[in-house]
Amino acid sequence: MIIVMSGKAAEADIQAVAERIAAAGLSAHVSRGLERTVIGAVGEERGLEPAMFEDLAGVERALRVVSEYRIVSREAQPEGSAIRIGHCEFGDAGFAWLGGCASARGLDELAPVARSVSEAGGGLMFGGGARRHGNPYQHQTFGVAELEALREVSSSFGLAAAAELSDVRLLDMHLELQLDALLIAPDSLRNIELLREIGRINKPVILQRDNRTSPAGWLLAAERIAAGGNHQIVLCDCGREGDGPGMDVGEIAWLRQETHLPVIAAPVAAGGQALAQVLARAALAAGASGLLLETDRDGRMAAGGLADWLSGLQPVGR
Amino acid sequence: MIIVMSGKAAEADIQAVAERIAAAGLSAHVSRGLERTVIGAVGEERGLEPAMFEDLAGVERALRVVSEYRIVSREAQPEGSAIRIGHCEFGDAGFAWLGGCASARGLDELAPVARSVSEAGGGLMFGGGARRHGNPYQHQTFGVAELEALREVSSSFGLAAAAELSDVRLLDMHLELQLDALLIAPDSLRNIELLREIGRINKPVILQRDNRTSPAGWLLAAERIAAGGNHQIVLCDCGREGDGPGMDVGEIAWLRQETHLPVIAAPVAAGGQALAQVLARAALAAGASGLLLETDRDGRMAAGGLADWLSGLQPVGR
Amino acid sequence: MIIVMSGKAAEADIQAVAERIAAAGLSAHVSRGLERTVIGAVGEERGLEPAMFEDLAGVERALRVVSEYRIVSREAQPEGSAIRIGHCEFGDAGFAWLGGCASARGLDELAPVARSVSEAGGGLMFGGGARRHGNPYQHQTFGVAELEALREVSSSFGLAAAAELSDVRLLDMHLELQLDALLIAPDSLRNIELLREIGRINKPVILQRDNRTSPAGWLLAAERIAAGGNHQIVLCDCGREGDGPGMDVGEIAWLRQETHLPVIAAPVAAGGQALAQVLARAALAAGASGLLLETDRDGRMAAGGLADWLSGLQPVGR
Amino acid sequence: MIIVMSGKAAEADIQAVAERIAAAGLSAHVSRGLERTVIGAVGEERGLEPAMFEDLAGVERALRVVSEYRIVSREAQPEGSAIRIGHCEFGDAGFAWLGGCASARGLDELAPVARSVSEAGGGLMFGGGARRHGNPYQHQTFGVAELEALREVSSSFGLAAAAELSDVRLLDMHLELQLDALLIAPDSLRNIELLREIGRINKPVILQRDNRTSPAGWLLAAERIAAGGNHQIVLCDCGREGDGPGMDVGEIAWLRQETHLPVIAAPVAAGGQALAQVLARAALAAGASGLLLETDRDGRMAAGGLADWLSGLQPVGR
Repeated sequence: MIIVMSGKAAEADIQAVAERIAAAGLSAHVSRGLERTVIGAVGEERGLEPAMFEDLAGVERALRVVSEYRIVSREAQPEGSAIRIGHCEFGDAGFAWLGGCASARGLDELAPVARSVSEAGGGLMFGGGARRHGNPYQHQTFGVAELEALREVSSSFGLAAAAELSDVRLLDMHLELQLDALLIAPDSLRNIELLREIGRINKPVILQRDNRTSPAGWLLAAERIAAGGNHQIVLCDCGREGDGPGMDVGEIAWLRQETHLPVIAAPVAAGGQALAQVLARAALAAGASGLLLETDRDGRMAAGGLADWLSGLQPVGR
Repeated sequence: MIIVMSGKAAEADIQAVAERIAAAGLSAHVSRGLERTVIGAVGEERGLEPAMFEDLAGVERALRVVSEYRIVSREAQPEGSAIRIGHCEFGDAGFAWLGGCASARGLDELAPVARSVSEAGGGLMFGGGARRHGNPYQHQTFGVAELEALREVSSSFGLAAAAELSDVRLLDMHLELQLDALLIAPDSLRNIELLREIGRINKPVILQRDNRTSPAGWLLAAERIAAGGNHQIVLCDCGREGDGPGMDVGEIAWLRQETHLPVIAAPVAAGGQALAQVLARAALAAGASGLLLETDRDGRMAAGGLADWLSGLQPVGR
Repeated sequence: MIIVMSGKAAEADIQAVAERIAAAGLSAHVSRGLERTVIGAVGEERGLEPAMFEDLAGVERALRVVSEYRIVSREAQPEGSAIRIGHCEFGDAGFAWLGGCASARGLDELAPVARSVSEAGGGLMFGGGARRHGNPYQHQTFGVAELEALREVSSSFGLAAAAELSDVRLLDMHLELQLDALLIAPDSLRNIELLREIGRINKPVILQRDNRTSPAGWLLAAERIAAGGNHQIVLCDCGREGDGPGMDVGEIAWLRQETHLPVIAAPVAAGGQALAQVLARAALAAGASGLLLETDRDGRMAAGGLADWLSGLQPVGR
Repeated sequence: MIIVMSGKAAEADIQAVAERIAAAGLSAHVSRGLERTVIGAVGEERGLEPAMFEDLAGVERALRVVSEYRIVSREAQPEGSAIRIGHCEFGDAGFAWLGGCASARGLDELAPVARSVSEAGGGLMFGGGARRHGNPYQHQTFGVAELEALREVSSSFGLAAAAELSDVRLLDMHLELQLDALLIAPDSLRNIELLREIGRINKPVILQRDNRTSPAGWLLAAERIAAGGNHQIVLCDCGREGDGPGMDVGEIAWLRQETHLPVIAAPVAAGGQALAQVLARAALAAGASGLLLETDRDGRMAAGGLADWLSGLQPVGR
């Protein structure tokens, strides 16, 4: 932590900061400049908060030197992680994908989607995960009946299944049905109780984000899960929420530097069916190692089946 | 709903849109312009979603004509609502406030805050509600012990109490302890399961927001609560999250036009202790009818007690 | 400047940073922490840029300690500035305002606006300054004919005049006509050549901003003018551009702390005629010392004349 | 234009809107819904502004049906444009690039950059174009001396040259020196006088943008140039300004749908040297047809020469 003192800070203000640093078990390193005195807190910084200093007299601002996440950082683990869900492995070794349709619910609706995933050679389907708009007169939690239907359909097609969990009270049912992975929607990134419970179980998590949360905030949510002991996290970037197509590949590239967790992209959420293939290619070029593919109710992508769509993911050169 | 067709839309595309409108029980009104055909859906629009049309061939975009919220809109109820919590009434009749300290937890910590609120003539204190930063190594839910302590302390000082609820599993305990109001933090505005449960009970809700949710998104969250039957909602604007002081009074003024629910402001969250008084005056000038005041651990505001601070809220003229 | 080294930085990397600091005439102060080495550059920092260090090996990031503006900072001049334009004085001494209609151009159009300003007791009118939307088929620079008309009309009503300058080539004409102040629209805040020329003349400047430029970026633009020698700058906050009413009073309050320049608000730009009066009160409560009032073509505000509108600016208390 | 009336609008309000539509030479098409009356303006809409209606009584909002740009739209010209600068052709036919170093100024500084571009097989270099930060104590316009040096150096290496123009007063010198193209920096997108002058000349323009202007706002700036008669426009996306790497490929993909103008990307501006190659691949995958490459002072990219960097732009498949 670096504490920048105001130009008008008194010597006593500097001492007060140094004492608070000492009280936290770190040592203060005072550097007196022409216009500002700057105090560094040397030691384990992650227990400190800028707010601990910003209310002291004479303090202009306090800045972290190290990031707030550690377990998920590439600094802590230089080699990329590989997360296995069923027969799919997400990580540096190669391309992997999962498919599904967020609005499919019962057996009849889930079956054509599962068939399509299976016929395209996929090994993992998902259920739920979509609610991005807040219509107060719709309620689309993926509940008990949906979890049971997903389990039954996915098993009958030999697929592993990732199911949305947004209601912490459904976690036990999720575990009981032995679903293979948890799908956490972008809306749940600030549901700290939910993230905390997920950190305690031993099951892969696909942690989605849209542009309402920053990449660093996403890593903090992942760290919160990891801090509980569950390190099996796949990051899934859903691009922009509303207001036209959007997917920031600079953020994907930054995440690849910053974390060892695998990053995949959800090109349909980011660009609609019309632009999904182009965005999928761009995400892979930027370092994403896989895709979450949202099909229509028939398990199809724009203008064709999943298999054709995947084979159309040809790289584009200069 | 208005559906704008692409310049290249065929007659069959227009028919397909009209049929989907008819299938939803509304009637289509086709207007053929020079460059675009525009189709209006006449009837009860709130069951429609733009996404129902945007995947049809030839559709450029679909736009709502009426807002997605209704119960909380001023169109539905022109006169302002008054929400009573203990002896405090939030609404057009006059200024009302509540005080508390988000980081105070046990009996010993809550008591000085309660004393300060009481001595300043207040009738309502709050507990919790603060977590705005995502440090994954801190967990500060307002849990069972905190709910019990808040109940005990507030009662002993003759105050009503509003307690944070972010974990849906604690709702029963909240009810059992007969806390007087629920305080919903900005992070919980997308926790749909939580909002839904709150809609089913009969207890006032203070629904907080920061700038990560739009004013319209806030009204959608309020509508979700109201749709369940609970209309006792006070909106509390917490201003900007992080990155310097910020409170948009244009949004407060807009909300006053758009909803009959009372709007209060949290000036300490928006501007820190240093700017809180100035921002409080501005919020009141913009139409807020009350304040949520976050004190320090001793129940004090910057440079003085709560009572002095409140008496310093003199209006400023031209 | 503080340079945070990466956890993997070598000793030679640290030396290279220290050498670059020395080459810029400052001295390096190295602080070795547990996870990061942090290097402070002690001396006159304003000649340094973070980019000078961020391309060196082993550097994670570089942070300014002092702001990039100095002349306009309150640190440099604790007492507030007073800027006089005609008989109006903008500053801490009291409320001041100017009125005008951005779309009024010729003598016939400007006259009713001038009459209204005069009748309401005002001493300063403005011309131009409005273009906020980018319709490519409209071109509304305030040109030579408009400058002449504004000069003639304002003089005939005994008013001082502030005229938009967005085209640097019109500066000479502006000076020749002895217009009393320059009005710089939000769109020109990044027109560095224009700001630079304005810095060289001796004439008050009303420097407008909307939310597309940050408060700090605004102060940088003001500093660019001040650095040329012209310190007669009035900051005028125009609130949000497009997309509903918006005016952040937290930013106004922050500016009041950060700069000695007077800050006024443009409530019509921020909230439309409907909300202008409410927003004006809030801006004054937040520390603005005056208003820029945009009337309609007849020199009127919503539901009445300027004089009535101004007398309705009664403060609102708790 | 579609005008949505308020739920409380009177019949006279509806008539007033219809009359204003008629006065603009279009015809009104009234559609009465359950909760709102919606009025369509049928005819040539581009002369209308929403503001023309939003000040009328009973109007809730006015929405455009057609975009404000026309010449640059793909609707107006389905096939992609090809813009030739020297021997480089930007467009659908294949990959093209230009190289340069924004901070290189005199002959000595420009020569190594030109040599590098030439040795890598390039045909076009640029000068200036960089100023992205607003340090008020630096002034880096690309002035007369720099224009002359760029002309001399580029010619001696057989390269065409694109030079920054941010000061409208330098346009004549630019033309006199017969520089091959104009480079318009992101900061100039709101300098309407400059855009207007550029529209009148017959010379290719590379129109840069960063994330402070929306894609639609960018097309409006391009349309403003095109409306003057100059249709030789290459769009160059510079990604995010400040605050970490950022480049939104969803916006690039959207632009490819929306306009026939070629789109290129500036990956160094978007991601720094460290991420430039990855972002370049992603931009090409998303539909960009070329690159603007900013080298260091020696004409080199990170870890190697331009030629190597370009040959490393291998496509990445699934």
